[in-house]
Amino acid sequence: DFMKALEEVKPAFGVSEEELETAMDRGILHYSPYIEHILNDGRSFVSQVRNSATTSLLSVLIHGPPGSGKTALAAKISQESQFPFIKLVSAENMVGFSEMAKIQYLNKVFTDAYKSPQNIVVVDNIERLIEWVPIGPRFSNPVLQALMVLLTKKPPAGRRLLILGTTSQRSVLRQLDLQPIFNYELAVPSINTHKELAAVLREVRAFDSEAELARSLHELRETTGTDQVGVGIKKVLLGVEKAKEEKENVPSRLADIIAQQMAANMD
Amino acid sequence: DFMKALEEVKPAFGVSEEELETAMDRGILHYSPYIEHILNDGRSFVSQVRNSATTSLLSVLIHGPPGSGKTALAAKISQESQFPFIKLVSAENMVGFSEMAKIQYLNKVFTDAYKSPQNIVVVDNIERLIEWVPIGPRFSNPVLQALMVLLTKKPPAGRRLLILGTTSQRSVLRQLDLQPIFNYELAVPSINTHKELAAVLREVRAFDSEAELARSLHELRETTGTDQVGVGIKKVLLGVEKAKEEKENVPSRLADIIAQQMAANMD
Amino acid sequence: DFMKALEEVKPAFGVSEEELETAMDRGILHYSPYIEHILNDGRSFVSQVRNSATTSLLSVLIHGPPGSGKTALAAKISQESQFPFIKLVSAENMVGFSEMAKIQYLNKVFTDAYKSPQNIVVVDNIERLIEWVPIGPRFSNPVLQALMVLLTKKPPAGRRLLILGTTSQRSVLRQLDLQPIFNYELAVPSINTHKELAAVLREVRAFDSEAELARSLHELRETTGTDQVGVGIKKVLLGVEKAKEEKENVPSRLADIIAQQMAANMD
Amino acid sequence: DFMKALEEVKPAFGVSEEELETAMDRGILHYSPYIEHILNDGRSFVSQVRNSATTSLLSVLIHGPPGSGKTALAAKISQESQFPFIKLVSAENMVGFSEMAKIQYLNKVFTDAYKSPQNIVVVDNIERLIEWVPIGPRFSNPVLQALMVLLTKKPPAGRRLLILGTTSQRSVLRQLDLQPIFNYELAVPSINTHKELAAVLREVRAFDSEAELARSLHELRETTGTDQVGVGIKKVLLGVEKAKEEKENVPSRLADIIAQQMAANMD
Amino acid sequence: DFMKALEEVKPAFGVSEEELETAMDRGILHYSPYIEHILNDGRSFVSQVRNSATTSLLSVLIHGPPGSGKTALAAKISQESQFPFIKLVSAENMVGFSEMAKIQYLNKVFTDAYKSPQNIVVVDNIERLIEWVPIGPRFSNPVLQALMVLLTKKPPAGRRLLILGTTSQRSVLRQLDLQPIFNYELAVPSINTHKELAAVLREVRAFDSEAELARSLHELRETTGTDQVGVGIKKVLLGVEKAKEEKENVPSRLADIIAQQMAANMD
Amino acid sequence: DFMKALEEVKPAFGVSEEELETAMDRGILHYSPYIEHILNDGRSFVSQVRNSATTSLLSVLIHGPPGSGKTALAAKISQESQFPFIKLVSAENMVGFSEMAKIQYLNKVFTDAYKSPQNIVVVDNIERLIEWVPIGPRFSNPVLQALMVLLTKKPPAGRRLLILGTTSQRSVLRQLDLQPIFNYELAVPSINTHKELAAVLREVRAFDSEAELARSLHELRETTGTDQVGVGIKKVLLGVEKAKEEKENVPSRLADIIAQQMAANMD
Ligand SMILES: Nc1ncnc2c1ncn2[C@@H]1O[C@H](COP(=O)(O)OP(=O)(O)OP(=O)(O)O)[C@@H](O)[C@H]1O
Ligand SMILES: Nc1ncnc2c1ncn2[C@@H]1O[C@H](COP(=O)(O)OP(=O)(O)OP(=O)(O)O)[C@@H](O)[C@H]1O
Ligand SMILES: Nc1ncnc2c1ncn2[C@@H]1O[C@H](COP(=O)(O)OP(=O)(O)OP(=O)(O)O)[C@@H](O)[C@H]1O
Ligand SMILES: Nc1ncnc2c1ncn2[C@@H]1O[C@H](COP(=O)(O)OP(=O)(O)OP(=O)(O)O)[C@@H](O)[C@H]1O
Ligand SMILES: Nc1ncnc2c1ncn2[C@@H]1O[C@H](COP(=O)(O)OP(=O)(O)OP(=O)(O)O)[C@@H](O)[C@H]1O
Ligand SMILES: Nc1ncnc2c1ncn2[C@@H]1O[C@H](COP(=O)(O)OP(=O)(O)OP(=O)(O)O)[C@@H](O)[C@H]1O
Ligand SMILES: [Mg+2]
Ligand SMILES: [Mg+2]
Ligand SMILES: [Mg+2]
Ligand SMILES: [Mg+2]
Ligand SMILES: [Mg+2]
Ligand SMILES: [Mg+2]
Repeated sequence: DFMKALEEVKPAFGVSEEELETAMDRGILHYSPYIEHILNDGRSFVSQVRNSATTSLLSVLIHGPPGSGKTALAAKISQESQFPFIKLVSAENMVGFSEMAKIQYLNKVFTDAYKSPQNIVVVDNIERLIEWVPIGPRFSNPVLQALMVLLTKKPPAGRRLLILGTTSQRSVLRQLDLQPIFNYELAVPSINTHKELAAVLREVRAFDSEAELARSLHELRETTGTDQVGVGIKKVLLGVEKAKEEKENVPSRLADIIAQQMAANMD
Repeated sequence: DFMKALEEVKPAFGVSEEELETAMDRGILHYSPYIEHILNDGRSFVSQVRNSATTSLLSVLIHGPPGSGKTALAAKISQESQFPFIKLVSAENMVGFSEMAKIQYLNKVFTDAYKSPQNIVVVDNIERLIEWVPIGPRFSNPVLQALMVLLTKKPPAGRRLLILGTTSQRSVLRQLDLQPIFNYELAVPSINTHKELAAVLREVRAFDSEAELARSLHELRETTGTDQVGVGIKKVLLGVEKAKEEKENVPSRLADIIAQQMAANMD
Repeated sequence: DFMKALEEVKPAFGVSEEELETAMDRGILHYSPYIEHILNDGRSFVSQVRNSATTSLLSVLIHGPPGSGKTALAAKISQESQFPFIKLVSAENMVGFSEMAKIQYLNKVFTDAYKSPQNIVVVDNIERLIEWVPIGPRFSNPVLQALMVLLTKKPPAGRRLLILGTTSQRSVLRQLDLQPIFNYELAVPSINTHKELAAVLREVRAFDSEAELARSLHELRETTGTDQVGVGIKKVLLGVEKAKEEKENVPSRLADIIAQQMAANMD
Repeated sequence: DFMKALEEVKPAFGVSEEELETAMDRGILHYSPYIEHILNDGRSFVSQVRNSATTSLLSVLIHGPPGSGKTALAAKISQESQFPFIKLVSAENMVGFSEMAKIQYLNKVFTDAYKSPQNIVVVDNIERLIEWVPIGPRFSNPVLQALMVLLTKKPPAGRRLLILGTTSQRSVLRQLDLQPIFNYELAVPSINTHKELAAVLREVRAFDSEAELARSLHELRETTGTDQVGVGIKKVLLGVEKAKEEKENVPSRLADIIAQQMAANMD
Repeated sequence: DFMKALEEVKPAFGVSEEELETAMDRGILHYSPYIEHILNDGRSFVSQVRNSATTSLLSVLIHGPPGSGKTALAAKISQESQFPFIKLVSAENMVGFSEMAKIQYLNKVFTDAYKSPQNIVVVDNIERLIEWVPIGPRFSNPVLQALMVLLTKKPPAGRRLLILGTTSQRSVLRQLDLQPIFNYELAVPSINTHKELAAVLREVRAFDSEAELARSLHELRETTGTDQVGVGIKKVLLGVEKAKEEKENVPSRLADIIAQQMAANMD
Repeated sequence: DFMKALEEVKPAFGVSEEELETAMDRGILHYSPYIEHILNDGRSFVSQVRNSATTSLLSVLIHGPPGSGKTALAAKISQESQFPFIKLVSAENMVGFSEMAKIQYLNKVFTDAYKSPQNIVVVDNIERLIEWVPIGPRFSNPVLQALMVLLTKKPPAGRRLLILGTTSQRSVLRQLDLQPIFNYELAVPSINTHKELAAVLREVRAFDSEAELARSLHELRETTGTDQVGVGIKKVLLGVEKAKEEKENVPSRLADIIAQQMAANMD
C-alpha cells in the first residue's frame, strides 16, 4: 500500500487535474468580495515565485474555520497558476502509513517538486497530517519536524516552489512553532451575514423565487434572533441539498437546518 | 487471524444479513414515538445519499446511554435501506489486532464500500475501536486519526456512502475533535418513564395480566419513590428474563431488579 | 512457552477439575449465612444461562477484599453447574507473556467456550490480568480493551456463556469503565465478627476445647479492644496453621497472629 | 549471555552454597538480641513450610535500612534450613537483561523450585529487580507484575516453597501493592546505640584494648553529641577496615568515620 | 536514503563550497558595525584553533532571532578560514532519518573531521536537529546527548576542530544543559533601527532614489509609530522582493510589508 | 561500531596509559593545598583496596562544578596506583550506542576488571552515561539501574576493585538514589580566590612578569568588584590561551575573559 502510494507520486510530474477538481467539486461561489481578495493574494504569490530572481521558495498558510473552503481555494489558486507541477498532499492518501512512511511520502513529493522549474505543493489539513488530538495533547513530532524542515528547504538552483498549507487549527500550529515558519498567511472566513448567505442561495438556485428566499431568511432570523451566520460554505451547501431532498416546504426546512448548524457551533 | 479477518471483509460485497439480525436479536419495540422519529430521520439520510446529485458522502453519529439500543437501530436503518453493500464494523472482530491491523481493516472496509454504487458502513461503539479508557486518558491515536480521515474521504465518482457511527461517549468524541466531523447526529434515549416501561413489558408479555403489570410498577414506584426510570432497553429486557427465570412472584422480582438497575446508575 | 500455553487450552474442552479443586483447597466453610446467599445467587445465574431462551451471555463480577474467598467461591459455583466447559483464566498461566500473547490466550479461551453448548469462563483476579499498579497508574490498556470486548461478545447461536470475573479492586475497575460492563455483581465479605471467626475456628478444629476457643477470643478482644475482625478467610486459615505449628499455647499465639493481621489492615 | 544465565539456573537443583557464603562474607555478629529474634522467626517460617499439612507456600518480606544486613540474614536462614533447593535471585545476575529476559529468568527459578520437595527462593533487593527510581517514578511494571504472580502461585501438590524477599524500600513496595502480598514481614534494624556499636567493635577486634574502644566512643559522642548511631552493620564494618588501614590513631579515625557516616544519613 | 546520506559525507574531505554559498545566497550586507564585530570574533576563534599549542577543540554558539543571518555568518566565517575540512550539518539532509541514523550521521561528520589537520563543523539550527517542540515539550534526547558528547570530545593528537553551532532558541538550549557546554557565544541581532534598515535598502537598491527611500521609511514610521524595527535580515530581503514584484508604488508597498512583519512579531 | 567498541575493551587487560594522559593533558597544577588533600584521599582508597583482607570493592564519587578537574584527578589517582588494570569509561566511546549496547559495554568493562587482581574503573561523567536532561526530566533508567548493580557487585574471590565515578551533578545522582550507593565521596572545588588564580597563572607562565600578573588581577578586581573567582581550572586555562593568542595587552584581555566567565556563571 505504501509502495503503491509512493508510485502514485511519481507519474505526478505534471498536474493532477482531477484531484484539483474534486477539491472544488461544488465550484467557487463569489458570495463576498473577500473571495476575490483571497484569490488575488494567491495570484501575487504565484507571480513572485514565477518572476523574482531571488525568491525560489515561498510558503503560505491558508487558515480558517472548518468547511470554510480552504482546500477548494488552495486548489483554485494552484489550478490558475498553470505551473507544470502541482501536487495536493493529504492524509487521505496515507491511511495506515507509519510515521516514517508518511515522512518518506512527504519527502518524495518535495523531491519531485524540485525537478520541475515551477512547482506548487498543497499541504492540506496539516493538523491531520501531524495527527493532532487536543487530549494529551498528542501529535506526531517526527512528521511535524519533517514538515518544518521541508517548508524551509531551498529548492536547487533554477527551481521554484510555492507551498500552500491549509489548516483550521492555526493556534495549534502556532503553539507548535510551525505557523511562524510560513512566509505569509491567508485567512478564509465563514459565511457571516444574511447577505452573504443570500448570495450563496441565489447562486445555487436553492429556491424557485426571491419570495421564498426572503421567507426562508426571515424564518431563520426569527429562530436565531440575529443576522450573524458563522457557518462554513461546505455545511451550507450540504444543508441546501438536504432541504431540497424532501421537496415540500424547502424554505422552512432550510431555515431549520441552518439554525441547527448555528446552534452546533455553540455547543 | 488478522489475515483471516481481512478475508472476511472481501466476500462482504453484498449485505451481511446475519450480522444485522444479531444486532437486533430482541427486535425493535416501539415503546415510545421517539423510536419512529429516529427511524424516520435515518430513512431521510438514506434517501439523501440515494438521490442527491451532489451528496456522495454523509456521516451520522448515533449516540445515547449504554444499552439504549444504538446498535440495533443502526442495524435497522441499514437493513431497511436495501443498499447493496452494508458492513457493520465492530471491535469484536478485531480482538488481538495491533493498531496497524485495525487501521488496515477499517481501510479495507471503506475501500470495499467505494466499489458498490450505494453503501452503508456502521462503525459501532467507536470508544472501543479507539481503545478509550478514562484513566490517563488513553486511546489509540492512530486509529482515531484513521477514522477522522475515513469519515471525510469522498468516495470515487458515482459511489455513495452513508456512515453510521455509534457511541455512548459522545462527550469523549467531542473532546477528541471526532464528534464535529460527523455531518448529523441522532440521539437515542433510555426508557425514561413508567409509561414507556409499561409499553415494553406489555410487548414482551412479561406478565400474565394487566393487574400483575400494575402491581409490579406500583412496587417499583414504592421502592424508588419516582416515576423516572432511566434504564436502557437492553438491561430491561435482560431483567425481564431473570425475573421470569424463577417463576414465582415475577412482578415483585422484576420491580426489585429494575430498582437495582436504577440504583447502579447512581453509584 | 506461549505456544505451550495455547496448547494447554485446547484439551480443555471439558472441565479442568483439578484447577477448580486447587482453587478451593481448604474447602468452603459456612461461617455465616452470607456464604449460602452468594452460592444461591451463583446458582440462579447458572440457571438463567442454562434455561432462558434469550439470555445467551451473562457476566457477573465477584468482588471483595483480598483473601476473602472470591476465587474459591467462583470455583464452587462453576463446579456445581456441571456445565461441559469450565475454564479458569489466571495470570499465573501467563507469566512472561507479552500483552499480545495474553490477548491471544484470552481470545482462545473464549473461542473454545463458544464451541460447547454451556460454558463458564472464570476470569480470575482481573487487576493482575490487566497489570494494574496504582503508581502512575499503569495498566495494560490492550488487555483491558480485549476484556471489555470479550465480556460483551455474544456467543454464536445455540451457545451459552456465563462469565465470572473476580477482583479485589472493584473501584479500579469502575474507574476503568470495566465494572459497569458486567451484568451483575456479587460481593464477598471478610470475616467480620468474633461470631464468624469462632465458627471458622470450630470448623477447622483449631483448638482442643471450647474453653481454649473462648480464651483465645477473649485475649484477642483484650488486645484489639473490639469485636470487629475484618480479616479474610485465607489469612485466618494460614494463621491457624502457624499458631498450631509451635504446639504450645496455641490460643494465645492465634490471638496474637489475628491481632497482627488486623493491625496490618490499618497501616 | 541470557541463555547462559538460564543455563546457570538449571544445575542449581541443589543449594548454591558459595552464593550464600558470599552474601554473609563478614559473618553474622550478634551485636543485639534482635539478631537472634530475627533468626528465630526465620526458623519458625522454615518449620511451618516443612511440617504443615496445608501451608505449601509462604512468603516473608525482610526489610530494613540500606546495609543493615538483610541479604546476609536471608542467606543465614536459608542455609540453616537444610532445604534441598535454595536459590538467591539477584539483579547482579541480570545486568543487561531485557524486561522479558528478567521475567523468564524469575519464572525459571520458580519453576525449578517447584521440582524439589522443599525450596527456598531469596528474591534479593526487590527495588533493583523492578528497576525502581524515585524520579518519575519509574519502574518495570512487567517485572513487578510477574513477581506479584509468582509470589502467590501455589507449588504443585507435594511441593513446598518459602520465599524470602529483601528490600530497603518497604514503603515503595507498599505503594506498588507488592508489600501486602507477602504473608509475613521481618524488620532488620541499623546499629542504633553505642552499646550495640561497642559489641560489634569488640567482636571484630577493632582495637587492641578496651581503653581504646572507650576513647573512640567517647570521641564519637563528643563530635556527634548523641548516643544514637543509626548506621548499618555493613558501613560500620567497612569503616573499621578503613580506620585500621592507616595504622596510627585508629580510635580517633574510626570515631571520625562513623561520625561522617551519621552525617551522610542526614544530608 | 540514509546510506546515501552517509556516502555524501565521505567525499566531503575538503570543503563543500556550494553548500556555503547557498547558505549566504543573498551575500553579507554590512548594515551595521556589529556585522564586522561578529566576523572579527569569528576570525579570532579560527586563529586560536589554528595556532594555539594546546587548544585543539573550540566550540562557539551563534544565536539570535529567526532570520537574523546566523547560518550565513557561520558560513562566512568558515569560508574565510580556508581550513581544509568544512562541513555544514543540517536537518535538511536528514529528513526521514531515525534518531539512530541522525546520530550515526553526526558521528560520521565528526569522525571525518578528526582526519584533517584543521576542521570546522557547522551544526546548524540545533533546535531542529534535536526535534524540539515546545508542547510537551518534546525533543530527541538521544540526539541531544550525542551532540553533548561530540561537542566536548577532543580530536586525536595533532587535529584541531572548531565547532560553530547555530540556534534561535538559546534559552531552550540552556534549559537542556546544552548551551553551557559551548566555550564561547556570538549574538546576532535583528535589524533594529531605521538607520540599519536604510543601509540594507540602499545596498540592495530597493528604490530608484533616496527620495523614495525617505518616503518609504516615513510611511513606515507613520504606520508603526516607532523607529524600532526588530525584523531579521532574511524577512526584510524577502519583503523587498515582494514589494518590487508589483512594480507600482514600491515604497508604500514595502512600508506596508515591513509594518506587517513587525506586527507578526507581536502576535 | 558497537562490536568494535566491545573489541576495544578486550585488549585493555592492562592500563590504557594514553587515555589517562589525555585526561590530564594540561597536567595537574597545585594551585591550592586542596589538590594535594584530594590526591591523598585517593591514595588512601587505593591502599585500602590493595591491602585490606576484607575490602574487595570500594566506590568513590568525585564531584564538583563543570571543568573543575574531576576527570584529570581521577586519572591521576588511577595512574599513581600502578594497578595492573585501569579503564576509563566515558560516553565518548559510546556515541550512537543503544541503551542495551551501553549496558553491555559497561558490563564488559567490569567483567574484565574482575579478571586482574587489582583494578580501577573510572566511570566518567555519569550524568552523560545515563543521558540525563533536566527537562522532563529524562534519563536512561536501564543504564542507571545497570550502574547501580555494577557499583555494588562484589568481584570474585581474590579480586579487588576500586570504582571512581565523576559527576558535576551530585544532586541529580542523589535524587536518583545513585549517590548514596557510593562508599565515599571526594569534592573538587573551582578556583575560588585571586590567590589561587595567581598560582595558576604563575605556573603556566601566563605573563612575562609579576607586574603584568598584578595588573591583570587588579583590572579583574576593578571589573568584578570582588576577590572571589569561582571558575573551573579548565576554563581558566582555555582563557589564558585565548588571551595569549592576540599577543597584545594580554593582562587586560585575560582580565576581560575571566570576568566574562564569572558573569556566565551567574546568567
Ligand atoms: N467561495 C468558495 N470558497 C471555497 N469553497 C467554495 C466556495 N464556493 C463554493 N465552494 C465549495 O465549498 C466546498 C468547500 O469545501 P472545502 O473542503 O474546500 O472546505 P475546507 O475549509 O477545506 O474544509 P475542512 O475544514 O473540512 O478542510 C467545496 O465543495 C467548494 O467547491
Ligand atoms: N426500540 C428499540 N431500540 C433499540 N433496541 C431495541 C428496541 N427494542 C428492543 N430492542 C432490543 O434491545 C437491544 C438493544 O441493544 P443494543 O446492543 O442495540 O444497545 P446499545 O445501545 O448498542 O448498547 P451498548 O451501549 O452496549 O452498545 C437489542 O437486543 C434490540 O433487539
Ligand atoms: N466460605 C469460604 N469462602 C471462600 N473460601 C473459603 C471459604 N471457606 C474456606 N475457604 C478457603 O479459603 C481460601 C480462600 O482463598 P481465595 O484464593 O479463594 O481468596 P481470594 O479472595 O480469591 O484471594 P485473593 O484476593 O488473594 O485473590 C481457599 O483456600 C478456600 O478453600
Ligand atoms: N548481625 C548481622 N546481620 C547481618 N549482617 C551481618 C551481621 N553481622 C555481620 N554482618 C555482615 O554485614 C554485612 C551485611 O551486608 P548485607 O549485604 O547483608 O546488607 P543489606 O542490608 O543486604 O545491604 P543492602 O541494603 O545494600 O542490600 C555482611 O557482610 C554480613 O556478613
Ligand atoms: N549581514 C548579514 N548577515 C547575515 N546574513 C545576511 C547579511 N546580509 C545579508 N544576508 C543574507 O540574509 C540571509 C540570512 O539568512 P540565514 O538563513 O542565514 O538566517 P538565519 O538566522 O540562519 O535564519 P533561521 O533563523 O531561519 O535559521 C541570507 O540569505 C544572507 O545571504
Ligand atoms: N589541579 C588540577 N586539577 C585538575 N585538573 C587540572 C589541575 N591543574 C590543571 N588541570 C588541567 O585542567 C583540566 C581539567 O579538566 P577536566 O576535564 O579534568 O575537568 P572536569 O571537571 O572533568 O570537567 P567536566 O566538568 O567538563 O567533566 C585538565 O586539562 C587538566 O590537565
Ligand atoms: Mg480542507
Ligand atoms: Mg452498541
Ligand atoms: Mg483470588
Ligand atoms: Mg542486600
Ligand atoms: Mg539558520
Ligand atoms: Mg570530566
